[in-house]
Parts: sequence; structure tokens; C-alpha cells
Amino acid sequence: MEINETAFRVRYAETDQMGVVYYANYFIWMELGRVEYCRSIGVRYRDMEEQDGVLLAVIDAQCHYRRPARYDDEVTVRTWICASTRKAVEFSYELYVREELIASGRTKHVFLSRDFRPVSLPLKYHALFGVRERA
Amino acid sequence: MEINETAFRVRYAETDQMGVVYYANYFIWMELGRVEYCRSIGVRYRDMEEQDGVLLAVIDAQCHYRRPARYDDEVTVRTWICASTRKAVEFSYELYVREELIASGRTKHVFLSRDFRPVSLPLKYHALFGVRERA
Amino acid sequence: MEINETAFRVRYAETDQMGVVYYANYFIWMELGRVEYCRSIGVRYRDMEEQDGVLLAVIDAQCHYRRPARYDDEVTVRTWICASTRKAVEFSYELYVREELIASGRTKHVFLSRDFRPVSLPLKYHALFGVRERA
Amino acid sequence: MEINETAFRVRYAETDQMGVVYYANYFIWMELGRVEYCRSIGVRYRDMEEQDGVLLAVIDAQCHYRRPARYDDEVTVRTWICASTRKAVEFSYELYVREELIASGRTKHVFLSRDFRPVSLPLKYHALFGVRERA
Repeated sequence: MEINETAFRVRYAETDQMGVVYYANYFIWMELGRVEYCRSIGVRYRDMEEQDGVLLAVIDAQCHYRRPARYDDEVTVRTWICASTRKAVEFSYELYVREELIASGRTKHVFLSRDFRPVSLPLKYHALFGVRERA
Repeated sequence: MEINETAFRVRYAETDQMGVVYYANYFIWMELGRVEYCRSIGVRYRDMEEQDGVLLAVIDAQCHYRRPARYDDEVTVRTWICASTRKAVEFSYELYVREELIASGRTKHVFLSRDFRPVSLPLKYHALFGVRERA
Repeated sequence: MEINETAFRVRYAETDQMGVVYYANYFIWMELGRVEYCRSIGVRYRDMEEQDGVLLAVIDAQCHYRRPARYDDEVTVRTWICASTRKAVEFSYELYVREELIASGRTKHVFLSRDFRPVSLPLKYHALFGVRERA
Repeated sequence: MEINETAFRVRYAETDQMGVVYYANYFIWMELGRVEYCRSIGVRYRDMEEQDGVLLAVIDAQCHYRRPARYDDEVTVRTWICASTRKAVEFSYELYVREELIASGRTKHVFLSRDFRPVSLPLKYHALFGVRERA
């Protein structure tokens, strides 16, 4: 199982008046993890959209928050695929600050064409996304 | 059971290049529903923070996406409390565009003091938040 | 001269750890003012993009900040067009909280086609945007 | 004159339905440049706020947009101080994608105490911020 780790600093814009990161921003961070995961397995998500016309549309997202993240913290996102078929893929995430788990989450996506119809993941991506079904 | 409905228009800033609303923004909309829910039961969340020093810190958030929302759509959020104790409260949300359910979600929060320690919800808020436990 | 006023509440998501609204969000508020200005003169910006394929692309934006806005404040944006030609339009904004001017700004936009080439504003919009040049 | 360069990738969340980066996000990028500029001259902005109680409050911000930035582009921000006194500091920015200038901007800030009163920049920061006035 491929696991990607990507790190970045908390932006001032991401904090709120509670003095910690606003909760919706964790989902943006999961997106960063997802994109870097894809890059690490050889898929540039931008190309998948532009060249193959395949969109990854979120249908479920969840996050469990354990500790607040603060401005200027270095956050590391660990991302992996926990389930995949030709129709859908599910990512898992763990977020760390100074090696302490601060949050974990999941997102589930379906593959859509540019006009938002469900499509099967093109064959060339099957191995990369760990799809084992027969096409 | 109290249910609040609040409506607003999708902002251009909330869309992404897929032409629909970016998924993390639904959690901002849940916040809008939550705040208006509180206002409808007589709690101004700003006062709760400023005057009572009680913070509502998110520990779990999830969203199920059924249909995309688009720029300039009028979105209605229905918000209600689905569980509450002296230590925590859970909100449920349904989001509609033109009376069609586009997403549903939940957020769970604990009550914290300004220095981020768990506290019990002050008595004066118990009835409002539907807390039935003995203090 | 048409002036539009539109009001909304500051979102928690829009604050930062300084306890006030993060500065970039004022530009989102200007967008709200701009869209409502357009609606007030009979132009639904969404239709202009979808039906006429005309995009309003920002080329200049500025904001002068006088007082901080805070969570749950009701902000009123006054928006008007301060200059317009067939090629470009400039909006002015004033932002108020409780009738006190908290910020003022300007944005300048050019009209683009969907493939990002400069275009002339379609004739039917000239009067609405106050364009006086001959077509 | 110190100039800082910092680079990052455009996030999906930062795009809008025009297919390019939403204009307000450039001001978030200027913040990234500003923070890294400070770090490069030996000032951790987080410490300045936490330990010295000095806030950098924006009073003016402007951006000139030359070319759109797109999802997954690597953006480089060049940041430098173009003016500074004990009371205020002004930053200039240039943003590049593949060595092409896509935008330039400025932000002007005053130094405030935690209760939002104007203060003089503490002496220990004068040299770093290029303040030449006598204290």
C-alpha cells in the first residue's frame, strides 16, 4: 500500500478568532494530500481532468478532530487509498503536527465525465488506483 | 424539536474550476445554519464566546453530497440539534436548492473554556440546547 | 448614478486569530456587492457568463481598511460603477458596520470571452453598465 | 535590500468556475510571501504576536493582475519591504509562474498592540525591518 506524506505550514488566513485553524480548512488540507498522493503514484490530477475529462467528485467527507492546529504549525498529511473500484475511490488521511496525530478523515469520490455523468475509471489508471476488478 | 431554516446565495468565491461549489465550503454553510439555529433559540453565539467564555469546538464533521450546488443558487440550510449533553452537542443539517436535497451533514462539538479545557455548558443554556441531564 | 446596498453578516470562517476579519475576505464582500449591483440594474451575472459567454476578469483591486470588522457584525456594502467603457468597467465600494465606514475599495475588470480573449461588452448591456461610447 | 522568494502550488480550492484562481486568493499568497520574508530576516511573525504582542494590521492592499494563475501551477512570490517607519511598514510583491510575472501588489501595515492601539515597532526589530528613524 502506497502512503504519501506531504507537509505545509498553517496559513494565517486559515485561523479563526478562536486562535486555531477553522474546521473547514482541514478538508482543503485533505485535498492537498490527495493531489500529492496522486502525483506520487504517477497521476497528475490536473491532467486527468484536462486530458481524460475525468473528474473526482466528492460524495462523502468526514473529519475527526483531536487537537487544534495553530498558525505557522507544520502539518504533515499522510494519505492513502482505503478502497477503490472502477466507479469510486476512497481516501484516508491522518494529519500530524510535531508527530502528534491532530486529525483523521476520509473522503469518498465517484468518477464523473465533464458533464457530471458517472464514468468508469479509464483502464490506464486502474493499477495506479489499486482497482482490481476486471474491466 | 426546533428546526431553523436559513437561506443565502452561493458566492462566486465558493465555486471551483469544476464549475460547482468546492466541497469544504459546505462546512462553512453548516456553520451559518448553526449560528442561525442558535440565534433562533435565543443564543447569540458571539455572546456565548465573549460573555460566558464558552467555545463550541468541533470534534467531528461529516457531509454527504448528493447534487452539486452552483454559483448564485439559493441554498437553504435546515439545522437542528440531534443530541446534547452538558459536555457536547451534535447538530444535523440538510441543504436544499429549489427544494431538492443537495447535501446532509452532522457536526459534533464539545464545550471548551477560552484556554481550551472541557467545561460543562452553563445552566442557563441547558433548556435552550435541549440538555435534560441533571446539573 | 445607480448605487446598490447589500447587507450580510460576518461569518466565523471569515475571522482570523487577530479576532477580526481576515483582509482578503473584503474582496469577497466586494464581489457580493458587485453581483447585487448587477442584479439591481437587471443583469444576472450568472446569465452573462452562461448565456453570453462574457466574463468579468479582475485586473486591479484595492482596499483601504479603516476599522476592523468582527464576527457576526452586519456589514453593508455600497457599490456603484465609477467608470465604464466597452472594454472595461470599474466598481467602487464602501463598507459599513452600524453606519460607520469601515473600508473602501475599487476593482477594475475587463470583458473576456470564455477563452480569455478581450471582447467588447455586448450592446444590450451598454445602457445598464453606463457605457456611453458609440458601438 | 532583502528580497525573499517563496514558492507553492495553486490549490484546487483556490480556483473558481472561471477555471482560474479567484482574485481574493492573491492576497493570501501575499501573506505567505510576507511571513516568509519575515522568517528570512530572522523574525517569526508568530512570535512577534505571541511574545511581543505586536500585530501587523493591514490598512491598504492592492493587486494588479496580469495573467491568470491556474490549478497546480507553481507560483513564486518575491517579497520585499518598500517603506518602513516605526509606525508602519509597506511590502511589495511580485508573483511569477514559470518566470512570467502574473501579478504585482502592495500591502501597508501599521503596528498595533493586542487591544488594537497603534504602537511603535519595538527597537529590536528596527534593523530587521529597515527602520532608520531614531527611536
